[in-house]
Amino acid sequence: MAVDLAQDAHVQDLAERTARFVREVVVPVEEAHGGVLPSDGERVRLQDAARAAGVFAPHAAPEFGGHGLDMCGRAAVFTEAGYSLLGPIALNIAAPDEGNIHLLERIASEDQKVRYLAPLAAGDVRSCFAMTEPSPGAGSDPDALSTTATRVDGGWRIDGRKWFITGADGAAFAIVMARTSGVPGDRGGATMFLVDADNPGMTIGRHIPTLDESLYGGHLEVEFSDCRVTDDAVLGEVDEGYRYAQVRLGPARLTHCMRWLGIARRAQDIAVAWAAERQVFGSRLADLGMAQAMIADNEIDIAAARGLILHACWELDQGRPAGMEVSIAKTFTAEAVWRVVDRALQLNGGRGVSGDVLLGRFLREVRPFRIYDGPSETHRWSIARRAVARATR
Amino acid sequence: MAVDLAQDAHVQDLAERTARFVREVVVPVEEAHGGVLPSDGERVRLQDAARAAGVFAPHAAPEFGGHGLDMCGRAAVFTEAGYSLLGPIALNIAAPDEGNIHLLERIASEDQKVRYLAPLAAGDVRSCFAMTEPSPGAGSDPDALSTTATRVDGGWRIDGRKWFITGADGAAFAIVMARTSGVPGDRGGATMFLVDADNPGMTIGRHIPTLDESLYGGHLEVEFSDCRVTDDAVLGEVDEGYRYAQVRLGPARLTHCMRWLGIARRAQDIAVAWAAERQVFGSRLADLGMAQAMIADNEIDIAAARGLILHACWELDQGRPAGMEVSIAKTFTAEAVWRVVDRALQLNGGRGVSGDVLLGRFLREVRPFRIYDGPSETHRWSIARRAVARATR
Amino acid sequence: MAVDLAQDAHVQDLAERTARFVREVVVPVEEAHGGVLPSDGERVRLQDAARAAGVFAPHAAPEFGGHGLDMCGRAAVFTEAGYSLLGPIALNIAAPDEGNIHLLERIASEDQKVRYLAPLAAGDVRSCFAMTEPSPGAGSDPDALSTTATRVDGGWRIDGRKWFITGADGAAFAIVMARTSGVPGDRGGATMFLVDADNPGMTIGRHIPTLDESLYGGHLEVEFSDCRVTDDAVLGEVDEGYRYAQVRLGPARLTHCMRWLGIARRAQDIAVAWAAERQVFGSRLADLGMAQAMIADNEIDIAAARGLILHACWELDQGRPAGMEVSIAKTFTAEAVWRVVDRALQLNGGRGVSGDVLLGRFLREVRPFRIYDGPSETHRWSIARRAVARATR
Amino acid sequence: MAVDLAQDAHVQDLAERTARFVREVVVPVEEAHGGVLPSDGERVRLQDAARAAGVFAPHAAPEFGGHGLDMCGRAAVFTEAGYSLLGPIALNIAAPDEGNIHLLERIASEDQKVRYLAPLAAGDVRSCFAMTEPSPGAGSDPDALSTTATRVDGGWRIDGRKWFITGADGAAFAIVMARTSGVPGDRGGATMFLVDADNPGMTIGRHIPTLDESLYGGHLEVEFSDCRVTDDAVLGEVDEGYRYAQVRLGPARLTHCMRWLGIARRAQDIAVAWAAERQVFGSRLADLGMAQAMIADNEIDIAAARGLILHACWELDQGRPAGMEVSIAKTFTAEAVWRVVDRALQLNGGRGVSGDVLLGRFLREVRPFRIYDGPSETHRWSIARRAVARATR
Repeated sequence: MAVDLAQDAHVQDLAERTARFVREVVVPVEEAHGGVLPSDGERVRLQDAARAAGVFAPHAAPEFGGHGLDMCGRAAVFTEAGYSLLGPIALNIAAPDEGNIHLLERIASEDQKVRYLAPLAAGDVRSCFAMTEPSPGAGSDPDALSTTATRVDGGWRIDGRKWFITGADGAAFAIVMARTSGVPGDRGGATMFLVDADNPGMTIGRHIPTLDESLYGGHLEVEFSDCRVTDDAVLGEVDEGYRYAQVRLGPARLTHCMRWLGIARRAQDIAVAWAAERQVFGSRLADLGMAQAMIADNEIDIAAARGLILHACWELDQGRPAGMEVSIAKTFTAEAVWRVVDRALQLNGGRGVSGDVLLGRFLREVRPFRIYDGPSETHRWSIARRAVARATR
Repeated sequence: MAVDLAQDAHVQDLAERTARFVREVVVPVEEAHGGVLPSDGERVRLQDAARAAGVFAPHAAPEFGGHGLDMCGRAAVFTEAGYSLLGPIALNIAAPDEGNIHLLERIASEDQKVRYLAPLAAGDVRSCFAMTEPSPGAGSDPDALSTTATRVDGGWRIDGRKWFITGADGAAFAIVMARTSGVPGDRGGATMFLVDADNPGMTIGRHIPTLDESLYGGHLEVEFSDCRVTDDAVLGEVDEGYRYAQVRLGPARLTHCMRWLGIARRAQDIAVAWAAERQVFGSRLADLGMAQAMIADNEIDIAAARGLILHACWELDQGRPAGMEVSIAKTFTAEAVWRVVDRALQLNGGRGVSGDVLLGRFLREVRPFRIYDGPSETHRWSIARRAVARATR
Repeated sequence: MAVDLAQDAHVQDLAERTARFVREVVVPVEEAHGGVLPSDGERVRLQDAARAAGVFAPHAAPEFGGHGLDMCGRAAVFTEAGYSLLGPIALNIAAPDEGNIHLLERIASEDQKVRYLAPLAAGDVRSCFAMTEPSPGAGSDPDALSTTATRVDGGWRIDGRKWFITGADGAAFAIVMARTSGVPGDRGGATMFLVDADNPGMTIGRHIPTLDESLYGGHLEVEFSDCRVTDDAVLGEVDEGYRYAQVRLGPARLTHCMRWLGIARRAQDIAVAWAAERQVFGSRLADLGMAQAMIADNEIDIAAARGLILHACWELDQGRPAGMEVSIAKTFTAEAVWRVVDRALQLNGGRGVSGDVLLGRFLREVRPFRIYDGPSETHRWSIARRAVARATR
Repeated sequence: MAVDLAQDAHVQDLAERTARFVREVVVPVEEAHGGVLPSDGERVRLQDAARAAGVFAPHAAPEFGGHGLDMCGRAAVFTEAGYSLLGPIALNIAAPDEGNIHLLERIASEDQKVRYLAPLAAGDVRSCFAMTEPSPGAGSDPDALSTTATRVDGGWRIDGRKWFITGADGAAFAIVMARTSGVPGDRGGATMFLVDADNPGMTIGRHIPTLDESLYGGHLEVEFSDCRVTDDAVLGEVDEGYRYAQVRLGPARLTHCMRWLGIARRAQDIAVAWAAERQVFGSRLADLGMAQAMIADNEIDIAAARGLILHACWELDQGRPAGMEVSIAKTFTAEAVWRVVDRALQLNGGRGVSGDVLLGRFLREVRPFRIYDGPSETHRWSIARRAVARATR
């Protein structure tokens, strides 16, 4: 009846086994390849190993081969998976597939589940989520959505340009967000469509070179030009896309936070181990006050992020929308993870910017998180608006 | 079995009634007197009102007239009490009495409970906790304890000087920490003694003028000179004082956090209400981006502090020492509360530094919390040491 | 011909004599009275001493008894004066008289100089500057000016309410900013008027209680009601008030920076001396890394502020408007001084918040500077606008 | 006689021509190659263009084909060169050659100048400076120097390992710092040696992969094993190496600051131009408060860094050691540049982390500057020690 912060035994066990698996199996692969998955074969090998270790697909429903964790449970397990840049892909909980699995479980028809969700949850295929558009389209401001889907005989025709579509290269299908009513700048209505990779109206364009490089399948430009789909390609209901986007985005923001919190803990572990060993100015680095301040600030940031993530998860698990809690957790975690990795790198000195440790790689990977999934500024605006609305209602 | 962040219904109800009581009864008194309790008569009146409202002494055991809240329960209720600078004294949960009640419940003999705890929990008397010493004595570094208690016929003789002894003016008794073995600079052993205010060996000296002024009874210098006490003045066991100090200090740090978090929320409410109303440059202040950033950062800081406090409370409620969690919560909260009040004041502009709102008063009151109960630097040192020890064990 | 950061010998000598005078004569008075000037008699005594020491009125023109320093020269001397809260009043360079002397030298007619400037520069009288209005009047946004001056037979009639009018209590005259064309919210035209204290249409209202208390003469509410003045009360030209305000405000913002930089240096000196002496955890405080970080950050902040102030001064001395440079210097210095005093206080621990040192007083005094003379947010808005205009012209 | 912040006309002209050259000639090459010089042929082409534009080698003495700028003059010109990552190499003022030219001008014998300085200043050869060693050797703590030079018949024998030796790949010679008396951990004496690239005792090892990649010639491991040199390879006097290191390091730290300040200004220009153009939420990005705050903070950081650099330069130009001023300027600038680039990237959103602008590249390049040339923590320690020494002398 009272407050209880303990995970239940099943989740705790899965988290511990995940932690062990990532340290023993995934980290060696990650370190051997500088944090970037070298091939699809390696992805398959890691996922096979995760299945063998009983830690695969912790979030998927049991009928799709997963452990059916709720959000609080994911908070425990995903952070352990995120301890390595390659942990999430090994467990099949990397973006964007993880969020797509979550979305399809909630919105897809039974037929769509068989055709799209089952192979995705099993790791047999990958997917992408095509929402973000280049300026002046939908980015920070979803109402700017300019890709359109128009009624045609027997289905729909999709036209428009997307970018930063993570994992598009090699994806078997895309979930596409397109405007089905209204015009850019007003909300109107949007609809989600399932588009197969072999649809001739969908063209995968260039890989956008980005500071981060570890999200498998890259960030791509995708063009829809006279892209025809039948009615059974509609995911959920017509004009309900913005609502479904929230179903996906809140949890997806939190699972991003969980994974990146794992990297923050890894960075801190690397830094603390180094500080405990490194001698400088006649002392152990770990005994120098300025180093201690950085180590402590990392602990504080990690603990605070963990608390905010858990709170938002719990709200979602109660069936509440948790928009405020998610924005707070996302904003704080994205910035805290960045600070933690930055301090860890600083503690390592010249070694920290060298390839001898992965801290420079981590720094590159976590930087965009302050922009992806809503820039900190957009979330702050949203948080403030809610705070003011709460005060004036 | 799973994670549950909901307070149980009894606590939730008490928290809500406390919130209402503070807003309706306490805040008007506080605002009329600039945040500083004007007289002991006013204290008695507020405490009578709290008793009438059924919100008095939420932390004390039921046999001493309280609600017997555990630490998680206190996190909910004390934050509501802290919404006004005078809320804690109204509920009899102000420092140092609140911590002394907590300590006496755990350590005192039955006789001592009757004689000291019962009237203290009832609000009939006040008390103080005499540990901190002027430099070079026990401050940030408890091992520097230089007040001594030496065996004499039939009891003990205490000699030494204390300062920053909160509430000493008017206290009926003091809990005094004195060295009973070893020398300053090594840990040795310390013992706690109960010393009555009328003991001729204890002299209450000057009120130390401080930036903060709302802790009732002031911060005082106290001198012990040939102060004789009998054996039954020993609280708990001889030489166990450092251990008892931890029994008191961990929870006391957290209850400070809870109370000051209440002030942070109050400051934010004042700022948000003002921002929603104030027109500047042709806009509502609440619609300007820089104001929104401050409002959002306040929400984030408050939420993060709340999460850290709850986590440390839960650890203590599980019977674990929680030294790490307490230091993290204390350090973050002390700094977060400071930032929140500072931003709230800034949002109010000239009004913020005027006496027309209490924000300047709040700023003065919360500043010392980054020093009292262990400066942030000492806690960071402690956090880092634990993090390094964890990594190297 | 090349870059030269050295002050010329005359200025250097005056700065050194000012430094000596403040340390030897002013600081003892300041410390004896907690930083707040106790009486007008003490003001007169300090000013007599400054005259005797040859350091009085360094900014006033020689014909008015001063040293005629340009802005760069003031940067050197005023910072030395600001080393004590009472240094500026001792030298007759405290706000608002200092800025009024500057303004009157540039704008006043010969008659007005004789009548108002001469006694003001001599310290025989004090003055105030009545521009700021309570919400929704002129505060951060000068265009909101709502006090009006309307043409009447033989002169003008002023009506409106001002607040935060520093030094109004005891001032011999006020320089009043009133709208003479347009309406609040559009710029229109403003005019400055010289209004004698005995004008029955000007009423000095309540002292606004503020966090800061050391500006002599307080912050007051002032009401103008059918306040009649003749044409020779117009300072400069009708409708040119906004332009004159800039003549006063740029330099006045910088001289504020100079004075508060003096307090920052004082706070740092107190902290460093303490750190060099205080023993904690078996070390000198000054040898602990976290203390060293605070000491170093204070040095960095002080040096950076000094550089920004000097740059803005030099621009003004070249006859350029320097709006960008003044806003940058003001914003950075106000925040840097705040950080420096805060760190100095933290370094002093319990002593820092006690009245045994003036750091708590300094903290109170410098906080409003982030709001007075334009809040940091308004200056940032102005800086950004200029930066964008520069990029797009 | 008074303060003068204007550069003399010659320097001003050179700075303007450099600015034009970099924008028109260098930036296109840089953008075409993602900020990393593709080949030595491109280096030669850029340097030829700089010679043709009359902006080559601004720091070298006229007899070596340069403009002979003092440190203040360099502050103006190098910042313009640093506006592109490839500007410094185009002007032959990139690290480490720039610092080596500075050092050789001051320390080298006439013969050494002919043999080493002349071709280096002309851009005919490149060089490296071999001081830093892997842990536990000389890094932050120069006294840990463990590479030794021992007297042998007719000269010296050098043994030891260096790392992070910038530009070593392709350098015609190295200036090597080796211990000639004392043992690691005590200061003892060090000596600088000129070692030709074809010396069989010097082996260029692996390129250390680093976060930054634009310093031409890479960061390498270099091993000295029975490396024999004759007496005329000694640079300056035996055992004076630590003193010479200061001759090189102070100015070199400042020129690093100047160059990186150029990148900060570039990042800000990219961000402001984008903010002026980009529409979001129905506004220009440049009109949103949170964006304005970032733009303004960038202006403030850039202005403050510029002031600190100029001050330290001027001190050096006066012949003073300026250790304090250099540490302050280096620490602030390294952190300010990092903040500026980070904010500029954030302002650009998804575009900012893409390769479509160079901001991600800039972020990678500037991060190590908080570690190279003394980590911020080491400089803070040094600043604090000087501040305490000043207070206690």
